[in-house]
Amino acid sequence: MSEKAAPVPHMIDLIRRKRDGGVLDARDIGFIVAGTASETIPLEQLSAWLMAAWLNGLTIEETRALAIAMRDSGEKFNPSRLGKQAVDKHSTGGVGDKTSFLVAPLAAACGVAVPMISGRALGHTGGTLDKLDSIPGFRSALTLGEFEEVLEQCGAAIVSQTPTLVPADRVLYALRDRTGTVESPGLICASILSKKLAAGLNALVLDVKTGSGAFLRKRADAEFLGALMVATAEAAGTRTVALMTDMSQPLGCTAGNWIEVAECVELLRGGSPAGNEDLRELSLRLAGWMIHLGGKTETAEQGYWAATGALADGTGLKIFFEMIKAQGGDLAVFDDLKASHKPGATLVLEAWRNGYVAELDTMELGWAVQRLGAGRERAGEPVDPHAGIEFHARRGAQVERGQPFATLYATNETMLAEPLERIKRAITFSNEPPDEVPLVSHIFARENAERYLRETASSS
Amino acid sequence: MSEKAAPVPHMIDLIRRKRDGGVLDARDIGFIVAGTASETIPLEQLSAWLMAAWLNGLTIEETRALAIAMRDSGEKFNPSRLGKQAVDKHSTGGVGDKTSFLVAPLAAACGVAVPMISGRALGHTGGTLDKLDSIPGFRSALTLGEFEEVLEQCGAAIVSQTPTLVPADRVLYALRDRTGTVESPGLICASILSKKLAAGLNALVLDVKTGSGAFLRKRADAEFLGALMVATAEAAGTRTVALMTDMSQPLGCTAGNWIEVAECVELLRGGSPAGNEDLRELSLRLAGWMIHLGGKTETAEQGYWAATGALADGTGLKIFFEMIKAQGGDLAVFDDLKASHKPGATLVLEAWRNGYVAELDTMELGWAVQRLGAGRERAGEPVDPHAGIEFHARRGAQVERGQPFATLYATNETMLAEPLERIKRAITFSNEPPDEVPLVSHIFARENAERYLRETASSS
Repeated sequence: MSEKAAPVPHMIDLIRRKRDGGVLDARDIGFIVAGTASETIPLEQLSAWLMAAWLNGLTIEETRALAIAMRDSGEKFNPSRLGKQAVDKHSTGGVGDKTSFLVAPLAAACGVAVPMISGRALGHTGGTLDKLDSIPGFRSALTLGEFEEVLEQCGAAIVSQTPTLVPADRVLYALRDRTGTVESPGLICASILSKKLAAGLNALVLDVKTGSGAFLRKRADAEFLGALMVATAEAAGTRTVALMTDMSQPLGCTAGNWIEVAECVELLRGGSPAGNEDLRELSLRLAGWMIHLGGKTETAEQGYWAATGALADGTGLKIFFEMIKAQGGDLAVFDDLKASHKPGATLVLEAWRNGYVAELDTMELGWAVQRLGAGRERAGEPVDPHAGIEFHARRGAQVERGQPFATLYATNETMLAEPLERIKRAITFSNEPPDEVPLVSHIFARENAERYLRETASSS
Repeated sequence: MSEKAAPVPHMIDLIRRKRDGGVLDARDIGFIVAGTASETIPLEQLSAWLMAAWLNGLTIEETRALAIAMRDSGEKFNPSRLGKQAVDKHSTGGVGDKTSFLVAPLAAACGVAVPMISGRALGHTGGTLDKLDSIPGFRSALTLGEFEEVLEQCGAAIVSQTPTLVPADRVLYALRDRTGTVESPGLICASILSKKLAAGLNALVLDVKTGSGAFLRKRADAEFLGALMVATAEAAGTRTVALMTDMSQPLGCTAGNWIEVAECVELLRGGSPAGNEDLRELSLRLAGWMIHLGGKTETAEQGYWAATGALADGTGLKIFFEMIKAQGGDLAVFDDLKASHKPGATLVLEAWRNGYVAELDTMELGWAVQRLGAGRERAGEPVDPHAGIEFHARRGAQVERGQPFATLYATNETMLAEPLERIKRAITFSNEPPDEVPLVSHIFARENAERYLRETASSS
């Protein structure tokens, strides 16, 4: 009776506290993360807690505690033996967001190591690993030893989480996808940073999407996420910047799996299909920051020009192919990009009036891509490597009624109808060209991120 | 492309819609209930939906759709062959709420049939079936045929849901318990009424708890639940009233499993231990309404006196024992009520100051009872039939420092500490006696329930 050891938390109490708007401390969060990793807390209790956290929010302290506890939930990668600065890029996810395939080889070409641990489809967005899986033979499930080997050989590697690395996040990531609890600043921040911190990065460049296709549609929410991630990662000792970038339309011309890889290879080969200047420009800016934070250039702009050189002289393509090959991929698939695309069903959508492409509900387009077969509703379901959408006109383009606007690729004919309706609902044409939206609207580094969080906290 | 058949809903969309404050239609609700009954919707998706529904609420129409879809999710009981009006009582749950053991035999003694389908521990309250399970040999899992036989023989039977009766509720009931989504008017109403409607009741008396031990602590929420249940059940053709009753302290002197059954048997035997007048009075009033709505008396007050007679002349006790025996229970356990109580550990809590028992956080007391071993945190876990709390002083009583206030019964010594702290936190003593709280504060029947709902809707 006289002993005052704090009792072990009960999950039901933590669910109820978060449901009722309360705050959990680091010990409570640690209990949840440990129970997640050991699978002793049932998924249905985690789901209820996630929905309560989604609706009531996590405080900055809860978010930090969650990121740290998740980082420490398993094995960690130590890149120090590579003899290079380890730098990664992470995007909060969008539609057609394929910059990883460009920034990893371009930054590696300029002398930093890029140990990229990526994820699978989450909500309305595709996953980097699902896209790479469209390359026959490609293996993302490397051991930490194999990961290090590929990094030594190529300078870049793109792998999945191992079962031992951040095991808590593996469970939560899949669960959030199935339970409608993806789009929460605190949960997103903790999930992303736990993996990046466990990879032992020296520096990190964050690509935080804003606009209709971003997880966080409200500008203020996305800014909060960007600042939160920069402050949290810096507090854990990783140099970090966050670029606030445009996701008011899909990035580049394609959204799917194979078609996104193919679009990047075409770019790395020096081709520039009309309409993907945004993809090229953003990739170079992100790579530029990676090169700069990795200590290879004095400024981010110098990094940009270094990356541009690596693109122009073919070094980027060479490293990309080396990396794919080192991870088991069959390069023959790149001989004829079009011939390698084998969708089950194809439908061309024509513009239904004259005008300008004005507004796109990009999240709705993302769900359409998922329903065409390129994404998944439940963890473990297969995705169709060849499903997706190719856009023939971008935002701001002038189109004529009957002109091909987009091509839909589905697993089979029956899977075309619902996505088609979604896409039609998602597009608005106008008589006047829409206002331009800047590709990169803001950059957070440590100081202005911390100031932003202080100001947000004091005004709420 | 030209066909316009509505697409099958996707669970993830319904979660997101409820999360974002939207409204589901009867078809959406039907999809969720069917997927729950068939176990094709994963529990983690149901949990997320439940938490979103808990936090954002269900509309009256959503609640009705949920109750009806759940009622129709399995087999139904047809009591018409009994040749009597089938009448049941249902309580929204509290601490020490054991009126079922009194009202079922008393109402049956006065000529109505009482086909009672009860539940197990839910949140901070015990379950009628867990209490009955403390009687050796007692079987609550009867087939519908056996249920009918006991009803014909005894006039009352208390059983668990069969696997085929309202299967959707079996899943949701257990899930809400584990996920902190119990205390929601819409979910409670649909859960209760689905079972009552599937039992084919002619009439129903609802005991809606208010005060610190009620699921819904706010008076307005409890009133809303009472009115909602009356209006929904009446719309489905069942004569229904709801009594708003006091749960600002545990009902009667005991909270647990066996000790609650024993307290009722003592009352049915004509004993009246100091302090459980509230239990006796409320049981008689509820039974009175059951007898009246079952057409046996002109008024509820006449029903009250009929029930009082059945208590006084021992008919209630006789029917209770017949029912227990018909359901396999060994009546020898009632020979010596005290000797049949075998707790693993006992601790007497003494009053720590002079004064009046002023306020009780009855929900906290309910959690203490659960943690002593009498309830469960996860479905399927065993409960201790002998754990619980016996109160020696009720609200309003004058106590002296050092006087025994309550006795705690736990499974073992180590399980006493946390509940003890909870109980101490839950009790407030004062220098002046507290205001009295009426036992029954309001009664809803069809007309004033519908008026209440209209006024609530127009003011929100």
